[in-house]
Amino acid sequence: MSNDEGESRFSLPVRVYYEDTNTRGTVHHANFLKFMERARIECLRSLGVELDALRLHEGLLFVVRHAESTYLRPALFNDLLTVTTDLCAKGRVSMDFVHEVRRAADATLCCRGRIQVACVDAKTLRPRRLPERLLAEIADAC
Amino acid sequence: MSNDEGESRFSLPVRVYYEDTNTRGTVHHANFLKFMERARIECLRSLGVELDALRLHEGLLFVVRHAESTYLRPALFNDLLTVTTDLCAKGRVSMDFVHEVRRAADATLCCRGRIQVACVDAKTLRPRRLPERLLAEIADAC
Amino acid sequence: MSNDEGESRFSLPVRVYYEDTNTRGTVHHANFLKFMERARIECLRSLGVELDALRLHEGLLFVVRHAESTYLRPALFNDLLTVTTDLCAKGRVSMDFVHEVRRAADATLCCRGRIQVACVDAKTLRPRRLPERLLAEIADAC
Amino acid sequence: MSNDEGESRFSLPVRVYYEDTNTRGTVHHANFLKFMERARIECLRSLGVELDALRLHEGLLFVVRHAESTYLRPALFNDLLTVTTDLCAKGRVSMDFVHEVRRAADATLCCRGRIQVACVDAKTLRPRRLPERLLAEIADAC
Repeated sequence: MSNDEGESRFSLPVRVYYEDTNTRGTVHHANFLKFMERARIECLRSLGVELDALRLHEGLLFVVRHAESTYLRPALFNDLLTVTTDLCAKGRVSMDFVHEVRRAADATLCCRGRIQVACVDAKTLRPRRLPERLLAEIADAC
Repeated sequence: MSNDEGESRFSLPVRVYYEDTNTRGTVHHANFLKFMERARIECLRSLGVELDALRLHEGLLFVVRHAESTYLRPALFNDLLTVTTDLCAKGRVSMDFVHEVRRAADATLCCRGRIQVACVDAKTLRPRRLPERLLAEIADAC
Repeated sequence: MSNDEGESRFSLPVRVYYEDTNTRGTVHHANFLKFMERARIECLRSLGVELDALRLHEGLLFVVRHAESTYLRPALFNDLLTVTTDLCAKGRVSMDFVHEVRRAADATLCCRGRIQVACVDAKTLRPRRLPERLLAEIADAC
Repeated sequence: MSNDEGESRFSLPVRVYYEDTNTRGTVHHANFLKFMERARIECLRSLGVELDALRLHEGLLFVVRHAESTYLRPALFNDLLTVTTDLCAKGRVSMDFVHEVRRAADATLCCRGRIQVACVDAKTLRPRRLPERLLAEIADAC
């Protein structure tokens, strides 16, 4: 989970199926955000954080507060993509993730996204401090 | 909600957007099931049943037990579709809905589906008797 | 299509169905982008632009280049939402749309988005000038 | 791709993400059809058939003609599922696939589906004979 620049980096392969595409022949722009979420969930899992357990045992949810995505090249049906996840900033109640989606075959950058995720109480949806355990793990990863 | 044959019939217009299509240029087969669900929800609403209130006040959920769909003609981006809902059978704990999805412009039949929906307890997911109020309303509609 | 501030404004009602929600009880963040796209398509239709005809007769596609969305309040199953569309900037080859998604019942702002849409050649995906007809219609609307 | 009963059998792991679930806490019934399609595509890939190449080089599409699915147990967010694919019948222009979706942890059967897929001309959408190469590969697999 770290690279030369000292950032965390996690990589998830994602295959493009029909469900992801649209009649223009390309992956629908909103579906790239779903690919990024899959990568984020797997990145957190690699850090020991299971989101269903976090909700059940600690009453915490991670919710998207802000999302920004830039579309550079189309991804097509049957493409194998690589979605990277970098944790580029963290506060007490939120984290910023940067994702890149590239075609695995030639590393063409299709989409780049920056997603702010807040930690909230599962019942009240009010901001809650990120769990200490995660903060420690993230500190190691960054 | 009734036609010459004495069946209930409810009709919902659905516009096809990019999100519904796939790279082959047509609506994805699984998305027709989502269109049918929208039509079912609006049909139930027209009978006075709001599914969020049913869950909150009576602890009941309606869940799909069985779905069968036949695909006859493609639907395309920007098509205006008409989704009909007929309640063709009901028991004490489940209902069978028949849906047809047609292009509004020329009534071409794109897809036909038959969906069995069961009434279950929202917590245990065990079968529960359909609410009396709905049974009465359905009886009138059939 | 215009309001007191002289901006274009188009409003689309969107009902939240099960397909739009996720296990946290709220509309999935990526699906708000799909609601905004529906609103954009209906806004363009109200200006006389049908995207299937634009592709067929003029060989043009509108594709999302950049999307930014802020999530303020959750939207829930069965909520009736109102999605507004404002064209806030246009160039020769792209347009910027601003959308707000509010609960119809109490006007609570759930999500705000800014989407840059480029006009491209349907075959080469290279930038193309927005059609004159649309530029004229947009000029009136702005 | 074969088991004791002499059927072809292909198995694909699928992780459940937020995008797959709905507010009732479970995978949306229509999304199981998408999981089955992913498994079908990977099964065909394991037989040497790439659907994008089939369209490009032979002008053929595989389209769903009929789908039948039975929902037995819910699948939840973060569940790891196993989707099996069995080719249970084939004609000259279509194939029948049977899928089972089970929780990987305890093999609980969540959903069973039977999907008829037809081979059609990519342009006319008229029935076309399944490619010889595939028929031979399928014959070996069955």
